[in-house]
Amino acid sequence: MVRTRSSRPLRVALLGCGVVGSQVARLMLTQADDLAARVGAPVELAGVAVRRPDRARETVPPELVTTDAAGLVASGDIDVVVELIGGIEPARTLIDSAFAHGASVVTANKALLAQDGPARYAEAERHGADLYFEAAVAGAIPLLRPLRESLAGDRVNRVLGIVNGTTNFILDRMESTGAGYGEALAEASALGYAEADPTADVEGFDAAAKAAILAGIAFHSRVSLDEVHREGITEITASDIASARAMGRTVKLLAICERSQDGRSVTARVHPAMIPLSHPLASVREAYNAVFVEADSAGQLMFYGPGAGGAPTASAVLGDLVAACRNKLNGGRGPGESAYARLPVRPMGEVVTRYHISLDVMDKPGVLAQCATVFADHGVSIDTVRQSGKDGEAELVVVTHRAPDAALSATVEALRGLDTVHGVASIMYVEGE
Amino acid sequence: MVRTRSSRPLRVALLGCGVVGSQVARLMLTQADDLAARVGAPVELAGVAVRRPDRARETVPPELVTTDAAGLVASGDIDVVVELIGGIEPARTLIDSAFAHGASVVTANKALLAQDGPARYAEAERHGADLYFEAAVAGAIPLLRPLRESLAGDRVNRVLGIVNGTTNFILDRMESTGAGYGEALAEASALGYAEADPTADVEGFDAAAKAAILAGIAFHSRVSLDEVHREGITEITASDIASARAMGRTVKLLAICERSQDGRSVTARVHPAMIPLSHPLASVREAYNAVFVEADSAGQLMFYGPGAGGAPTASAVLGDLVAACRNKLNGGRGPGESAYARLPVRPMGEVVTRYHISLDVMDKPGVLAQCATVFADHGVSIDTVRQSGKDGEAELVVVTHRAPDAALSATVEALRGLDTVHGVASIMYVEGE
Repeated sequence: MVRTRSSRPLRVALLGCGVVGSQVARLMLTQADDLAARVGAPVELAGVAVRRPDRARETVPPELVTTDAAGLVASGDIDVVVELIGGIEPARTLIDSAFAHGASVVTANKALLAQDGPARYAEAERHGADLYFEAAVAGAIPLLRPLRESLAGDRVNRVLGIVNGTTNFILDRMESTGAGYGEALAEASALGYAEADPTADVEGFDAAAKAAILAGIAFHSRVSLDEVHREGITEITASDIASARAMGRTVKLLAICERSQDGRSVTARVHPAMIPLSHPLASVREAYNAVFVEADSAGQLMFYGPGAGGAPTASAVLGDLVAACRNKLNGGRGPGESAYARLPVRPMGEVVTRYHISLDVMDKPGVLAQCATVFADHGVSIDTVRQSGKDGEAELVVVTHRAPDAALSATVEALRGLDTVHGVASIMYVEGE
Repeated sequence: MVRTRSSRPLRVALLGCGVVGSQVARLMLTQADDLAARVGAPVELAGVAVRRPDRARETVPPELVTTDAAGLVASGDIDVVVELIGGIEPARTLIDSAFAHGASVVTANKALLAQDGPARYAEAERHGADLYFEAAVAGAIPLLRPLRESLAGDRVNRVLGIVNGTTNFILDRMESTGAGYGEALAEASALGYAEADPTADVEGFDAAAKAAILAGIAFHSRVSLDEVHREGITEITASDIASARAMGRTVKLLAICERSQDGRSVTARVHPAMIPLSHPLASVREAYNAVFVEADSAGQLMFYGPGAGGAPTASAVLGDLVAACRNKLNGGRGPGESAYARLPVRPMGEVVTRYHISLDVMDKPGVLAQCATVFADHGVSIDTVRQSGKDGEAELVVVTHRAPDAALSATVEALRGLDTVHGVASIMYVEGE
């Protein structure tokens, strides 16, 4: 028998019983003694709200299952609401109702937080409740708590990571098998790594929501979803991957949040980028996630682990649940919104980065000089050039030094205008060097 | 001007102003506005207790410096005591005095925590104070907070990591330059990575203290320092490193805390081990630290970053300071000791592991068969054997499958007794495969 400090059970309402929710319910029921010992009081599953009661009954006792989520949240004796429905509505209304009824909230809802986080924080604050959401970013990896709490005395300058498992799986398959995008996506779907409609993942919406959340926490400043530059992976070709490989690089979909050099503004972006094969992120395989955090005092930190999946995400949810329950019991509060820094978010054009550009050019003397002049005219310095000819046509591959994105795109536009340039085969960011 | 929720300043006493303490003081003074915003009230450096006041005055205003640590702690208006003196006394007495005077404590004192942690937790509990010590293990890497809080709803089965920067620097130099132990240690000393008396690091005492702390937190069960099996790196030779390299492995000093398969007991140990070059820990260079955590639901997580140094360690201290201050302000409590599981700690003999054994044997037929019989007689299964002859002498390198450490040592003892075995050149653990 585990001794606990209090015998009043903490009552938890679970909203949603899908891939993650069913694991949360299972763990709450099977590890009840451990949870009680860690919280200091029994943690009781008060009810599970679902759309289709039949499926939930496989994992939870039938008497706990209800289709009335609003009624469950409003029942008046709920200490913590675990929201795993996802999407904007009815999740938002249910979360606000939870706060209004004095409950704290644990959620994995990155879409809602990225779009409407500040208002949810404000509601939590107004009712003296907690809002925890470790599971919303990078699945099982403890990332938000370290950023919000462990690094609370440091100054974060950069967060760079792989935060979407589906796209990492697809790019990893393209890299390891030479497959094209379509084929790799089909494999990801067959193995359950991609949803029936993969848009949110492959177009970078999911990663962009996570980037907005990460930037907000890292820089103590609000970054809204529409301030995150976003590009997906649907236009990456097998030839892009091969070209990266030929230069000792691989392609990853990265979320990058940066503080400017003067510290007075920030940027947030999601796009595919070439990184060196020697970079630790290059060896992040399959659906794993990994995030680098660079801070003034701490230096460079890395966090790595499963970025999705029922049990791993449930682990993050339960960690938050223990924290929310402990606060209920001991009268403490988890961290609220910290957005005091009020830093402006600069647009993509002002991001300083590097390009890898493949051009189809005429195979004749002077073409390289002509192209090089275009780069110079736009203030873009060239790092390396590789030229290879074939039947009167030549391929020119240029990797630039760091320059503002606006200058880089203007360079590409000007190159397109040259008679000797038949086409721009690909443009890709280069990071991590 | 930063707005804070309270105008009552939180008063902090800093004990010790050395490599880490001076960085903590500097950051508290230069980032006062950020700390106030993150805590919700100004955080004030009330005093800095040192042995030699002259040196401290370089970083902190002279009027804050005192040699009377006990008086500072007992002054009655201190909210948080940051103890960075290290060692058992006077640190222990000062920490207990802090609790008795109603202050919370932030410390990096791994020696005290490993030897006397439970009594300190009890004092904190008795006075309703907090005890935070993120900086005690793996420097700047957020590791204890993730283990104590993010994984509070999970079941940790294994912690495996590089937790001592000095020894990792020495082994990394031996690996990359082919230097012997003495030469690499001299380089580490010259560069400030090793102390004048390097015993605590190179003999594994420092890592063992960290292993005791990690095991206690990971398994919710007390593990005392004398229950941690400990071997240092002083006997590692350039030839061991070369031999590891020849088999696609490298040598690292690892701290390993494991739950038994039946979940009912645990082990904790620190020793050098060969790991595959493809293992993520193999690429942890210089004085960096990295720790793997395996949990039932979360799966495999990795945390990586600077394991020591003034600024990185100060980052961890300040994160804890913000947490302790927030609790003081909001009435909450950080996690206390969680040792309810009361799992017995098994001795090294019962650890199931693998050996890499180099034998100098007579170069004649039948020797391999004779040796193989000794392994079989002790129930130890052989994974690979490599034999190489030179002038009537031969070297036999055996890597075993997993077996209890007691069976492996008994096998080695029996091999020493064979006429055909001239000597056991080296024995090393093999991990991470």
